[in-house]
Amino acid sequence: METTDFEKQLFDLQKKVGKIEKGTKDQLSMVVFSGDLDKILAALIIATGAAAFDMKVNLFFTFWATAALRDPKKSVSGKNFMSKMFGMMLPKGSNKLKLSKMNMAGMGTFMMKGIMKKHKVASLDEMFATAAELGIVINICEMSMSLMGFKKEEMIDYPNMNICGVATFLADASESKVQLFI
Amino acid sequence: METTDFEKQLFDLQKKVGKIEKGTKDQLSMVVFSGDLDKILAALIIATGAAAFDMKVNLFFTFWATAALRDPKKSVSGKNFMSKMFGMMLPKGSNKLKLSKMNMAGMGTFMMKGIMKKHKVASLDEMFATAAELGIVINICEMSMSLMGFKKEEMIDYPNMNICGVATFLADASESKVQLFI
Amino acid sequence: METTDFEKQLFDLQKKVGKIEKGTKDQLSMVVFSGDLDKILAALIIATGAAAFDMKVNLFFTFWATAALRDPKKSVSGKNFMSKMFGMMLPKGSNKLKLSKMNMAGMGTFMMKGIMKKHKVASLDEMFATAAELGIVINICEMSMSLMGFKKEEMIDYPNMNICGVATFLADASESKVQLFI
Repeated sequence: METTDFEKQLFDLQKKVGKIEKGTKDQLSMVVFSGDLDKILAALIIATGAAAFDMKVNLFFTFWATAALRDPKKSVSGKNFMSKMFGMMLPKGSNKLKLSKMNMAGMGTFMMKGIMKKHKVASLDEMFATAAELGIVINICEMSMSLMGFKKEEMIDYPNMNICGVATFLADASESKVQLFI
Repeated sequence: METTDFEKQLFDLQKKVGKIEKGTKDQLSMVVFSGDLDKILAALIIATGAAAFDMKVNLFFTFWATAALRDPKKSVSGKNFMSKMFGMMLPKGSNKLKLSKMNMAGMGTFMMKGIMKKHKVASLDEMFATAAELGIVINICEMSMSLMGFKKEEMIDYPNMNICGVATFLADASESKVQLFI
Repeated sequence: METTDFEKQLFDLQKKVGKIEKGTKDQLSMVVFSGDLDKILAALIIATGAAAFDMKVNLFFTFWATAALRDPKKSVSGKNFMSKMFGMMLPKGSNKLKLSKMNMAGMGTFMMKGIMKKHKVASLDEMFATAAELGIVINICEMSMSLMGFKKEEMIDYPNMNICGVATFLADASESKVQLFI
């Protein structure tokens, strides 16, 4: 093989490897779909764990999970009838979430929170604070926001929060080593 | 280092990179397990979004999700008792699916469909049509079909639809950049 | 280009490829979160399928899924009130699990088990035995164990079973080609 041949082959390989590298970043992309307390807890435990290991973490909150991001202290005026109805029926913020199983009219959820406290497991609010500190990005699904009539002004204060479409999740996921749907 | 040495090392590396490339295709493989309207909507929004970005998309419909693929206009005779019972109890096609939360005896599902229409979000049927146009492959789990007594003749008309086993999903997933279980 | 230049570039590329290779092992990492019969069945069908194709498989059992790993023949004394309550309320072992849909006071679950038997689909217990033979690793979430008051002594006999934290899942997932959350 001649030198120029080497050169070309090496160059081609470098390009290929560069492309693969871009697609396997030390990054975790998660769709958070469920609005259940236990599933959002699981999502945040995995997310903050990954961020603590220096992975870049992107969460894409969609459907029921968006309700968990509402700030109970904020309210927005000028909503139409449907938006008001959804607003009333869906849990307002992380403290109103219920377990997917064994909720038992709230008792199971209450018990679980008590046990978590006793075992010094962080509450959901504390986890969101940690997530913010660790630089975890929270993207909220634009379509879900508009279907449920939620506005950005009623969401919790969070430094890296964006409203965006599924394309953003797909772009993130394509570059991530790990992807999950919760 | 000598030229032949270079040659060998370059060749080895090319082989390795080729293998890695095969395992990180611009491809999305998804298990669609849930039969809830909201989850199948999410699956199809992600799938059609990915296909629009030129990703190859393979959906593996299994368990409850298979019922969503039944065509309400088709019926199959010669089923045994158990198959008939499953057939009756499971929703027949995408228009019979319910939300996983807030179904409220159908009212929540009805409301959600109304809001989707108002916001010009495509219905599930329209999404399946788009998926077909975009070349998305729908694989249906053979085992689920036989457990629930469904036959291929009662499924919707869809150009890239196959009945196959979990091995097909695993082969697809192993080559895909992104994998999800919904 | 000079030979030493080649050498350096080839060396750099080999290092990069080595790193990428480590992150795309023929390995499947799954979070098993749900405690529903149908979802745990799906997890084990995918897991044993992957292991049969020579993939290394790591399952991370967390939250409700941990209850499915309890051995109904074993019992542990010295539990506190909360642990006893959780112990009583959660299904004890794989035979007590219910379908996520159509449980219908147990009838749907009973029917499904009957049909599975008829179609020679392995029961959950048989699948765990197969998983053990295939060398599938079962990691149980430490936090879930302590929240629900479960102890290792009451879990099923399984050769590759460890109690560990989410960090173990993340380390496994980062090296795996395929990751799922069920």
